[in-house]
Amino acid sequence: MKAFMDKDFLLDTKTAGELYTQFADMKNIPVLDYHCHINPREIYEDRKFKNITEVWLGGDHYKWRQMRTNGVDEKYITGDASDREKFQKWAETLPRLIGNPLYHWSHLELRYYFGYEGNLNGDTAEEVWNLCNEKLSSDDFTVRNLIRKSNVRLICTTDDPVDSLEWHEKIKADDSFDVQVLPAWRPDKINNIEKKDFKDYIWKLSEVSGVEIKDLSSLKEAVIKRLDFFSEHGCIVSDHALEYVMHVPAGEEEIEAIFKKGLTGKEIDSIESLQFKTFMMLFLANEYNKRDWVMQLHYGCKRDNNTVMFDALGPDTGFDCILNGAPSSQLADFLNAVSMNGGIPKTIIYSLNPNDDQAIGSVIGCFQGGGVRSRIQQGSAWWFNDHFTGMTNQMKSLANLSALGNFIGMLTDSRSFLSYTRHDYFRRILCRLVGEWVENGEYPDDKKLLGEIIKGISYNNAVEYFGFGLEKV
Amino acid sequence: MKAFMDKDFLLDTKTAGELYTQFADMKNIPVLDYHCHINPREIYEDRKFKNITEVWLGGDHYKWRQMRTNGVDEKYITGDASDREKFQKWAETLPRLIGNPLYHWSHLELRYYFGYEGNLNGDTAEEVWNLCNEKLSSDDFTVRNLIRKSNVRLICTTDDPVDSLEWHEKIKADDSFDVQVLPAWRPDKINNIEKKDFKDYIWKLSEVSGVEIKDLSSLKEAVIKRLDFFSEHGCIVSDHALEYVMHVPAGEEEIEAIFKKGLTGKEIDSIESLQFKTFMMLFLANEYNKRDWVMQLHYGCKRDNNTVMFDALGPDTGFDCILNGAPSSQLADFLNAVSMNGGIPKTIIYSLNPNDDQAIGSVIGCFQGGGVRSRIQQGSAWWFNDHFTGMTNQMKSLANLSALGNFIGMLTDSRSFLSYTRHDYFRRILCRLVGEWVENGEYPDDKKLLGEIIKGISYNNAVEYFGFGLEKV
Amino acid sequence: MKAFMDKDFLLDTKTAGELYTQFADMKNIPVLDYHCHINPREIYEDRKFKNITEVWLGGDHYKWRQMRTNGVDEKYITGDASDREKFQKWAETLPRLIGNPLYHWSHLELRYYFGYEGNLNGDTAEEVWNLCNEKLSSDDFTVRNLIRKSNVRLICTTDDPVDSLEWHEKIKADDSFDVQVLPAWRPDKINNIEKKDFKDYIWKLSEVSGVEIKDLSSLKEAVIKRLDFFSEHGCIVSDHALEYVMHVPAGEEEIEAIFKKGLTGKEIDSIESLQFKTFMMLFLANEYNKRDWVMQLHYGCKRDNNTVMFDALGPDTGFDCILNGAPSSQLADFLNAVSMNGGIPKTIIYSLNPNDDQAIGSVIGCFQGGGVRSRIQQGSAWWFNDHFTGMTNQMKSLANLSALGNFIGMLTDSRSFLSYTRHDYFRRILCRLVGEWVENGEYPDDKKLLGEIIKGISYNNAVEYFGFGLEKV
Repeated sequence: MKAFMDKDFLLDTKTAGELYTQFADMKNIPVLDYHCHINPREIYEDRKFKNITEVWLGGDHYKWRQMRTNGVDEKYITGDASDREKFQKWAETLPRLIGNPLYHWSHLELRYYFGYEGNLNGDTAEEVWNLCNEKLSSDDFTVRNLIRKSNVRLICTTDDPVDSLEWHEKIKADDSFDVQVLPAWRPDKINNIEKKDFKDYIWKLSEVSGVEIKDLSSLKEAVIKRLDFFSEHGCIVSDHALEYVMHVPAGEEEIEAIFKKGLTGKEIDSIESLQFKTFMMLFLANEYNKRDWVMQLHYGCKRDNNTVMFDALGPDTGFDCILNGAPSSQLADFLNAVSMNGGIPKTIIYSLNPNDDQAIGSVIGCFQGGGVRSRIQQGSAWWFNDHFTGMTNQMKSLANLSALGNFIGMLTDSRSFLSYTRHDYFRRILCRLVGEWVENGEYPDDKKLLGEIIKGISYNNAVEYFGFGLEKV
Repeated sequence: MKAFMDKDFLLDTKTAGELYTQFADMKNIPVLDYHCHINPREIYEDRKFKNITEVWLGGDHYKWRQMRTNGVDEKYITGDASDREKFQKWAETLPRLIGNPLYHWSHLELRYYFGYEGNLNGDTAEEVWNLCNEKLSSDDFTVRNLIRKSNVRLICTTDDPVDSLEWHEKIKADDSFDVQVLPAWRPDKINNIEKKDFKDYIWKLSEVSGVEIKDLSSLKEAVIKRLDFFSEHGCIVSDHALEYVMHVPAGEEEIEAIFKKGLTGKEIDSIESLQFKTFMMLFLANEYNKRDWVMQLHYGCKRDNNTVMFDALGPDTGFDCILNGAPSSQLADFLNAVSMNGGIPKTIIYSLNPNDDQAIGSVIGCFQGGGVRSRIQQGSAWWFNDHFTGMTNQMKSLANLSALGNFIGMLTDSRSFLSYTRHDYFRRILCRLVGEWVENGEYPDDKKLLGEIIKGISYNNAVEYFGFGLEKV
Repeated sequence: MKAFMDKDFLLDTKTAGELYTQFADMKNIPVLDYHCHINPREIYEDRKFKNITEVWLGGDHYKWRQMRTNGVDEKYITGDASDREKFQKWAETLPRLIGNPLYHWSHLELRYYFGYEGNLNGDTAEEVWNLCNEKLSSDDFTVRNLIRKSNVRLICTTDDPVDSLEWHEKIKADDSFDVQVLPAWRPDKINNIEKKDFKDYIWKLSEVSGVEIKDLSSLKEAVIKRLDFFSEHGCIVSDHALEYVMHVPAGEEEIEAIFKKGLTGKEIDSIESLQFKTFMMLFLANEYNKRDWVMQLHYGCKRDNNTVMFDALGPDTGFDCILNGAPSSQLADFLNAVSMNGGIPKTIIYSLNPNDDQAIGSVIGCFQGGGVRSRIQQGSAWWFNDHFTGMTNQMKSLANLSALGNFIGMLTDSRSFLSYTRHDYFRRILCRLVGEWVENGEYPDDKKLLGEIIKGISYNNAVEYFGFGLEKV
């Protein structure tokens, strides 16, 4: 029996252990976190946390969901219970989460950042609470030091086109912190014409861009101004949250009419919304391609499903689910349309529905080329799939259908500064998978080839793919 | 090499064996079979079977399907061949079913009830026939004794709202049998307004309830009377068979008009049918919630696909299949509507399409709470998924997305009194999975935590969840 | 650690090795390749290849896709680079394909046909190029000798109804080659009424059949003539490429009107196209059944997705993807309609979407019977699924839902004469799976039963199922 989550966690073969130690350990192989949701202000201000509840339970809707699942009253989740009480409830929930990634993430964080080697449960909560809080009170545990401890070289945040990017500017101007923190362009609000706040958002975009938006042409002009502004701040990554990747084309006049309806706050039906989004996605993909940006497409999510809780807590509080039924035909048709509209930018496709893995793997193979290794990538297992099963299945599917050796690997997608161990989790699973293949005689035991693959997926492929100007290791 | 299906069947690690022996063996940990299709009359009358063909092949459409698949003539399946001939054909079919759960179920039953340790095939059929029939002829093998041998504490049957529940009453009144046999409410015929026999069914419901049903209001009144009648007989579980969990809302006046069409035998189109069902499901869910009943939703089945065979044999004879394409969006919207219509009852969701596992796991997380551990459950792998692969995948998915530790576990869903070994099969698979995690260092080797989890999933969680008043073990 | 792809490749248990050696090794157990895309003319003319690039990269769009994925310029794929350069680019791509079936297929072919035991990569390319080309230049490596080396007993090609079948005739008349090469009927162009070339195709069919096609009745007459012609040439297998298995019935008058539109080159909308196809599929299925032919249904593919590349290279060049969303309800309804329209022929169903495995497995169980073992088969893992994961999952799913022991097993689906090692790959995976079950105590270690199953799935079941008149082994 292997010990519980020790240094060999998930490394079940000799080869897996060697690959990890030589080519994947975060101590030697840095982290490039190209997609997350952390707040750049907290980096600039080098926030310090008052206790482990603040770090762990302050905004992590993954943990909130599981506490609700365990029957914990909302008072101890987002309510007015004390931080110590909330931590106790979480500690009591954790053992029921056998097999859940939160069980592993929590213990990886306890080991990596706090040196705690036991297991957290109701009985050990007090001990863990004291240990963590003592460490968090030291200057060694500020946001910047947590990032440094995690060997992070570069972070892309997630930012709205109207954002001032002031915190990114300040971080850049601050010589005492040498980790790059770059904005990423997330223009969902420009595309979501069916939403109530669309009209107001467009006004704000007018204001920020200095372009009076009154038709498609001026909309494009405003968007281009903001794209240029983001470019000036080092942005080379965009991100879209879509229900699915749609291709519902319409003539530009029709789109003009739909946009005018949206501008005046009239109701937009679902076909019109899909047509407008298709149009905007084609326009934006072309702009990304001109700038050599990467386009990320995250789809397959239905958000804010619980009206009672949405009214109480707002979005991103743990009430989203997988949206199934995304048609692979439209994904293929969309990429084809992008291809014929000036060429496909480097693109990363993520679906929240793991059943889409094979369809995506087969679609991307139809649009590769242009001198970039795996120009169209299938993104790593995301959100509800960010666990041993999901990551293993995504990598096996990608290996079966594409070139796993070119995969750009992991990102945290996180709101927390302790989440970089998700990269460690991913790398252990990668080394386990590859180690298994090698030990089974399915791939040569050739450390030169294997080192390229493991270091590539852990770090180097992303360096090459995005073109941030980082050095490979 | 492990011996063929011995006492350590499926228990591939030391930990798995220990967990099974200490926390899951049916000898010590009883069975709560909260969903099945057995006939309560046969329990009351304490039926005795004349031979193994009667028990095994009398009504088991799982076996019939596989015999047809093996090219066996219908004469030897549902036809007029002798019981000995039918058994021979089944025995000859069995070895072709390598990897099929029927191969394991059959041998588990041979071992558990009849003490037969060999393997059944054409050559051993005579030996097995004689052995089983000798045992079945003893008083030790009546229905009640089979239930006792299986350490069953409670059974929920599946009953129509118009059922008199007379056999449940008689069993309750009979002091010589101390296993609880409770009715479960299965009101599909009230909802299936598109069916030809809807009008006749509503007349029957009028008669049984004593309420003249002429509009929605009287329909509800009649239904409530029957719900109360079932409550008086100890019912606390409902069950619905749905093509998918729909949410197609309409105004009450529209529903009134649709219902009137149904009452007069007019044709109902598919939208109207979905609207009526949505309305009724919301009404019923609210009634369940008021009574603290559990609502079971079984979906993803297309029934009676073979018209030629349906005309010959009727329903439930082996001609059903998985219906794919269930939209997770409507499942989420339905639960949200239930939530806003008075609150969500304890709910168990089962899809026959295993591709729905992750969508379900993510949807249920949006509606948990209210002080019940895993108030919304994903039901155990069902029917076409009730095998090693299906059960393992369902549990892994549930673990990844929710709190496996709160899972209420297995049920037989069976028409047979020898099927309780399916609980044993499930528990072995559970212990194997958890044993693997522990031995791989993915969960602590802490027998206190593990015992709670294994005993919980095997029995105690269901005791707590349903509230039948049973003692935990 | 097992050696890299040696004689025990994938045979991870003692039992797996024994099963393979005794019951599956291509040296002893022949190959029946009942579906492929090789050119019969090349068999008749006994083509010789000038180098390994010609064999491997001349028409293999699987490899082309992966080279594009690896960023290789089209010049080195389908362009005018030298064969040696193209081979180099492929050799450099291969190591990135860790976990991909092309990695295994390529090395299996190098071992089986060329005796090369190393691993191919950029550094070893020269050595492999020289070795292979030397062998290919000998008379031992003509097409016929490659087929003989592969212990192939029978090949079904894929042929259009208007084909003259002249090469099949010539091969049959040539006594020096005793492997049967039979045509298979692939009438997609008769059914694809929405295509631009439909009208022209029907004219050609008129000409070849000698029946002036002016309505449904004469269309049927012409088709029957060609079916008879194929029958006379030994054809007993048909094949259909469908987006999905549809059931959109319409009256014969409506179909007549749609067909007339098609005949005059008018545009056919998608409903009309589905109605016409449904009608034709029912007609053809009935004709197949009368002749005791096997009907193959391949579905779940969206073809020619990249317009730019299609315009440059045409079809079958590596730009197809999985089409998801096939409704299992229509598959079931279609089979039921076939059943009521004269009976279901022996049928093999393949979906390119692996998520359809369980739906298919459950649908086929509704239509078995008629004295044939597994009359309705789920075809082996196909195209994008033709790898360890896909084949294992397909066999597990089939075992769970049907009778794996009756499975007719593998086919190459290939355009290459080196692809017969895909049968070896499949058989190793089969023996591994069954070996695992036996060693885990899930199936008896009974070599008589196991030999029947392994030899059956490798060869004998197909012999029995198709009825080609071959001897079992």
